[in-house]
Amino acid sequence: MKFNDFLNNLSNYEPGKDIEVIAREYGVSEVIKLASNENPLGTSPLALKALQENAHKAYLYPDDSMSELKMKLASKFKVSEKELIIGAGSDQIIEYAVHSKLNTQNAFLQCGVSFAMYEIYAKQTGARCYKTASITHDLSELKALYSKHKDEIKLVFLCVPNNPLGECLNASEVEDFLSFVDEDCLVAIDAAYNEFASFKDEKKHLEPQKLLKKYKNALYLGTFSKLYALGGLRIGYGVANEEIIKAFYKLRAPFNVTNLSLKAAVAALDDEDFISRTLENNFNEMKLYEEFALKHAISFIPSYTNFITYFFDEKNSSDLSEKLLKKGIIIRNLKSYGLNAVRITIGKPYENERFFTEFEKII
Amino acid sequence: MKFNDFLNNLSNYEPGKDIEVIAREYGVSEVIKLASNENPLGTSPLALKALQENAHKAYLYPDDSMSELKMKLASKFKVSEKELIIGAGSDQIIEYAVHSKLNTQNAFLQCGVSFAMYEIYAKQTGARCYKTASITHDLSELKALYSKHKDEIKLVFLCVPNNPLGECLNASEVEDFLSFVDEDCLVAIDAAYNEFASFKDEKKHLEPQKLLKKYKNALYLGTFSKLYALGGLRIGYGVANEEIIKAFYKLRAPFNVTNLSLKAAVAALDDEDFISRTLENNFNEMKLYEEFALKHAISFIPSYTNFITYFFDEKNSSDLSEKLLKKGIIIRNLKSYGLNAVRITIGKPYENERFFTEFEKII
Repeated sequence: MKFNDFLNNLSNYEPGKDIEVIAREYGVSEVIKLASNENPLGTSPLALKALQENAHKAYLYPDDSMSELKMKLASKFKVSEKELIIGAGSDQIIEYAVHSKLNTQNAFLQCGVSFAMYEIYAKQTGARCYKTASITHDLSELKALYSKHKDEIKLVFLCVPNNPLGECLNASEVEDFLSFVDEDCLVAIDAAYNEFASFKDEKKHLEPQKLLKKYKNALYLGTFSKLYALGGLRIGYGVANEEIIKAFYKLRAPFNVTNLSLKAAVAALDDEDFISRTLENNFNEMKLYEEFALKHAISFIPSYTNFITYFFDEKNSSDLSEKLLKKGIIIRNLKSYGLNAVRITIGKPYENERFFTEFEKII
Repeated sequence: MKFNDFLNNLSNYEPGKDIEVIAREYGVSEVIKLASNENPLGTSPLALKALQENAHKAYLYPDDSMSELKMKLASKFKVSEKELIIGAGSDQIIEYAVHSKLNTQNAFLQCGVSFAMYEIYAKQTGARCYKTASITHDLSELKALYSKHKDEIKLVFLCVPNNPLGECLNASEVEDFLSFVDEDCLVAIDAAYNEFASFKDEKKHLEPQKLLKKYKNALYLGTFSKLYALGGLRIGYGVANEEIIKAFYKLRAPFNVTNLSLKAAVAALDDEDFISRTLENNFNEMKLYEEFALKHAISFIPSYTNFITYFFDEKNSSDLSEKLLKKGIIIRNLKSYGLNAVRITIGKPYENERFFTEFEKII
């Protein structure tokens, strides 16, 4: 059977390995997953309660207006509900951004290494991809590349902080870039990990309302998968001016988010104690990862996220990842990003200790 | 801001109204929803148990291989796991079928009135749409229209039984049609309600394994939203030969289904008692809807689904739906399908009684 030609150019995302699958395949009894930047403290107690209380409603279609969560987010961000769209993960909003702006005649821009899904979605449209020579966000390089291909570039992704590398632009730099580009170029600011960055350094804190007010082409992307610990429930959101949200709505399938995800997200936003504990654990434990790297002369970029990326010279990241897997520890090998590096999610204290113990033996 | 031109041609699906929203808007205390073909018996006890037991895993990304559910479905249908793809509702598999086959240069075929999402997704590709003059599936009309535009038509939707009308082709007619069309034309057999039809009349029963074996271009679509009562959790599947599934996988975003949906679906498949009770309630109560229609001289098509469609001559379906809404009863007005008709989900006995009581007053 013949399929549309554009399918030939598509590649698939390589997801983090699943705990149950690894336990089975490697015959390991206890598996520690430090691969997918999930919240190591588990599901937030308030979200768990909402799930338990609403589980019996699984037979009912979701409220497609999503008014409860939208009201909550609108009040949190001081924006209008018309400036909001909710997706099956912020991934889905990335997809809408790509499909509404890109086509075979234009291009998008990102830094050298960033979230893989930007390029995967963009390939579906046949658009070109421009990446800076620097793997991290370098504002002057981004500007130079934008200027050179100004007529082509209709979408820019800024990942603030950057996954899978961990560095983070300042909010002022994001604004500087927004001021620089044409109004017809959509700038998607992927803030999936921005709560972590803001906690470490308030200069990194992005306010969607402030961005929207000043820049008609700003799109802020947030997720419930990281700090809010709902990775399994696929829920995220986009904040932008009404015109952009309207265009995205045309691409949205009805019922794109489950009713239990909506209920859990509403509850998770209120769980301030859980949020504080998550942020504190993360940066306390991050210090140990930095000390470990310094002690073993492993290069790393100071991280503003809930993970740290270690770079290697002689050791091979694939070998190291495979050796850890055999011990029941899953980390993320970054070979598919063209890097001899691994990304490790900051876990709970005992998980991190086990990682240090096992990793020390093999480096 | 400029967006891709194709967005201008898109329309949105009109979902059934939400219970909580209607209660608020109309100030009604008890709302009865007979609008979205949800299972009136609620969530299956086994699925509910699975949700309660797995709710604490909401923080973990889903197993993207979906191996547990795939194994279960493969064994149920006697197909290989490579012949299966799981989507956020069977809607998402419809989307993959459309995007892998259709483009501005070709077309798809359906009967006069069928599930609205076929056309909504197809519009995203710019493909043409051919519909038979008959609103229901008329095999000879479908064949004639296919023959006339054979070179253009690359995808056909058969909805077996048909939503929103309720009629149902025999399995032998589906096979007859499959034998008739070219191998390069994908035939999507939407079996969302086929379990209901099979229970009423075994001649309607479709076996994916049998279809796959004989026809390389057959795609069977199933859902957990109706009989299995998981409409809120957005989960469905496609069964087709490996080549088709591979093409669809290229369009699939990672983690397209939530981890709780996967767990609930596995459990729901096992809940035989719940399934029997659902089917029995449905067709026992269906009789009352037929009697009601006969008594009031309302036209209807005998239904092989969990809903019945009433057609009106003089009364206006929009007025009738609105009057019922004020009484706290939600049914589905079919004006957006170009019909002066309403679709009513078969509810629990007391819900149906309330419908009859209120409807009798206004017709």
